[in-house]
Amino acid sequence: MDKTKSMFDEAWKVLVGGVCSSVRLNKALGKPLFIKSGNGSTLTGYDGKEYIDCCCSHGASLLGHNHPQVNQAIEKALQMGTICSYETEYQQEVARKICKFIPCAERVRFTNSGTEATMHLLRACRAYTGKDKVIRFEGHFYGYHDYLYIGGHPPLKYLKSKKKLPYRECEGIPKEMRQYVISIPFNDLDILERTIKKYKDKVACLILEPINYNSGCIIPTREYMRAMRELTRENKILLFYDEIQSSFKIGRAGAQGYFNITPDVCTIGKALGGGVPLSAMCGKEEIMNMFRPVGNVEHSGTFNAHLYPIMAANAFLNLIAREDFYPKLDSLCTKLHKEIGYLFEKSKLKGHIQYLGARFGLFFGIDSEVKNYRDSLGHDKEKMLKFAREMMKRGIYFHDYGGSATHHGISIAHSKEDVDRILNAFEDTLKVI
Amino acid sequence: MDKTKSMFDEAWKVLVGGVCSSVRLNKALGKPLFIKSGNGSTLTGYDGKEYIDCCCSHGASLLGHNHPQVNQAIEKALQMGTICSYETEYQQEVARKICKFIPCAERVRFTNSGTEATMHLLRACRAYTGKDKVIRFEGHFYGYHDYLYIGGHPPLKYLKSKKKLPYRECEGIPKEMRQYVISIPFNDLDILERTIKKYKDKVACLILEPINYNSGCIIPTREYMRAMRELTRENKILLFYDEIQSSFKIGRAGAQGYFNITPDVCTIGKALGGGVPLSAMCGKEEIMNMFRPVGNVEHSGTFNAHLYPIMAANAFLNLIAREDFYPKLDSLCTKLHKEIGYLFEKSKLKGHIQYLGARFGLFFGIDSEVKNYRDSLGHDKEKMLKFAREMMKRGIYFHDYGGSATHHGISIAHSKEDVDRILNAFEDTLKVI
Repeated sequence: MDKTKSMFDEAWKVLVGGVCSSVRLNKALGKPLFIKSGNGSTLTGYDGKEYIDCCCSHGASLLGHNHPQVNQAIEKALQMGTICSYETEYQQEVARKICKFIPCAERVRFTNSGTEATMHLLRACRAYTGKDKVIRFEGHFYGYHDYLYIGGHPPLKYLKSKKKLPYRECEGIPKEMRQYVISIPFNDLDILERTIKKYKDKVACLILEPINYNSGCIIPTREYMRAMRELTRENKILLFYDEIQSSFKIGRAGAQGYFNITPDVCTIGKALGGGVPLSAMCGKEEIMNMFRPVGNVEHSGTFNAHLYPIMAANAFLNLIAREDFYPKLDSLCTKLHKEIGYLFEKSKLKGHIQYLGARFGLFFGIDSEVKNYRDSLGHDKEKMLKFAREMMKRGIYFHDYGGSATHHGISIAHSKEDVDRILNAFEDTLKVI
Repeated sequence: MDKTKSMFDEAWKVLVGGVCSSVRLNKALGKPLFIKSGNGSTLTGYDGKEYIDCCCSHGASLLGHNHPQVNQAIEKALQMGTICSYETEYQQEVARKICKFIPCAERVRFTNSGTEATMHLLRACRAYTGKDKVIRFEGHFYGYHDYLYIGGHPPLKYLKSKKKLPYRECEGIPKEMRQYVISIPFNDLDILERTIKKYKDKVACLILEPINYNSGCIIPTREYMRAMRELTRENKILLFYDEIQSSFKIGRAGAQGYFNITPDVCTIGKALGGGVPLSAMCGKEEIMNMFRPVGNVEHSGTFNAHLYPIMAANAFLNLIAREDFYPKLDSLCTKLHKEIGYLFEKSKLKGHIQYLGARFGLFFGIDSEVKNYRDSLGHDKEKMLKFAREMMKRGIYFHDYGGSATHHGISIAHSKEDVDRILNAFEDTLKVI
């Protein structure tokens, strides 16, 4: 009797689809992954089976699970008495550290989810510029609200149909919402230039994942990123880096540091809370000051900057400030990523890896560099699901993402032995899928 | 030297307005309330001064601060290893309890903030009905996203100007967003009937705070609420109770239980997480099943149903399930509310209290019942700020809300002695403001 099968049956009676998030119904398994505990690099299922985690909470658990310093920080919050909705000395301490690490951060505001972060910051951009439209990129993901859940992942059929209006990514989004979104291919300077010239008087901001992890880790060229910075500045369009995923993965300064380009505003999150829900909006003072009580753009909420995530984020930022943090993380990740590359080269299977920092994308059925979302659509989803299933059998957890090419990654808690075990399982799996 | 003055100065350099939420810049104090710790009914400032809390985290701390069972629940989450984004046995356990307590809850999904809850559930309502507009009420608050931060709190001047389009409550909301919102006065059946008849073919849902705490605790008549249920059913408009604030304040079944009326869907939150950020969407199975992976409305997120809030909510729901919970809470609140009523009656000052369950509103300059938002605009904000300042001097914390008539409340952790101290300070304060 499979305990998690009955757990799933029971969950289905009270939770929509038996899960707390659409994507947690794992297509490779045909049920959710139920986890009894996590420790470091390892997840333990209800059957007692252990898995080396290559999802790491979609990037939130960069420290691994059950990190002692995060736990101590939470204990401290407990001692202070779960004070919700009041300011303490720690909110500003965390904000100070963010301002130190993130180049564009002159002022900060915290939110719970990344969805909230891009939503509220977009409002400030609109108020600042007096314009409403947004230029965004195909294959990028900026959260689940209606303003930006349009134009991200159109199916191939839709792209070929040459429809002019951007694609709504789920039901329940009113059709008029498409008027605010201009969605274009990433990594193509001609298209970007033409679009900015055409719409500059109506566009509040240009938003991007500076590293497009959500389409399997697509890294734009430096020339493209520099030209984008110049074009947006010249045309009075705010440059908005959505670094929810890229923040702290490549280094303390995120993709801004990697490219040495400072956007006007950015969102950071995912790993920020050390595995506890926290995101933040950052930006130049005069733009951030659009928020009340300085300006007239609302940003409030009972749960904003709750003490638990703030204390956990403080611990996280202290850990990544250590001199040995990124060298250690880089050495682990580089070994994993490069060896996976060799395994693909050696294998008869068509496929490859793209990577930067602590996240990587896997493509099956494609062995040349994927440079934009349209390229990524050649990825073989069925093969990805088989891969995830076979890796699970070998004690390695890759999230399935419905078979899509997105991103995976390890944490600072993974050991060299973990990396070897992942690579061994990978090699075996490539032979059988 | 006032330590919190320098804390505020330092905060201002990194946080917009020196605070994490617009409303945390306390107008009565001219600075935020910095809190070092909370315990039961009591907040302790950085100067060591203690305050009896009459804000209770805007309603989130119904258990008071530092509740031992909530702390134990968090400890248990710590032992499980801060596992973020994976399903455990506890998400479904909390959902089962919600389905038991909340009449309309056949299926549940969790979100972080109340803002996220109304935003995602609105999307499901639109997908289910194939319609886009929303009927809402003046003076109600349903979160901070652009779909519902329109038409809630128009200034008197705007109301008198007879403008037809609803009022945008802050900058940065595109003007076309008003097309989705029909905002009408609460508690007026004629207007409701006319509005439903006129717009029924375009309206997805009618959303309301069934107890309008955000305008100072306005309780609609039972006839109005029954007629609303019938009218929405007959006209194929979903009835959406936003019970973020009212859930668990009046009893286990919220306002739905109080009126004995079952809406189609509802949002719950605030107190749900026992002081930790958690909200939930609930509703009839066929509507909730619009969400993926059953239907085609997206609802995902790395931080959805994180283990900390889930464990804290489990503790909260166990506590409120105890037979003596609501009798004890009611007896404390009834004493406080009735005695405040007597103090207003005895006082020369024009003012009164409105209350239900564990929250109450205070009106200064008005001594008759406030039945809708327009009535509430006669409230004297300056007097409210004075009141908050004078109560602070006497060791009692009322949040200022910029002087507006909103809501206040105590917790199960408040003692009879706390209530007496609040009443003594109240009596003294009425004499000096």
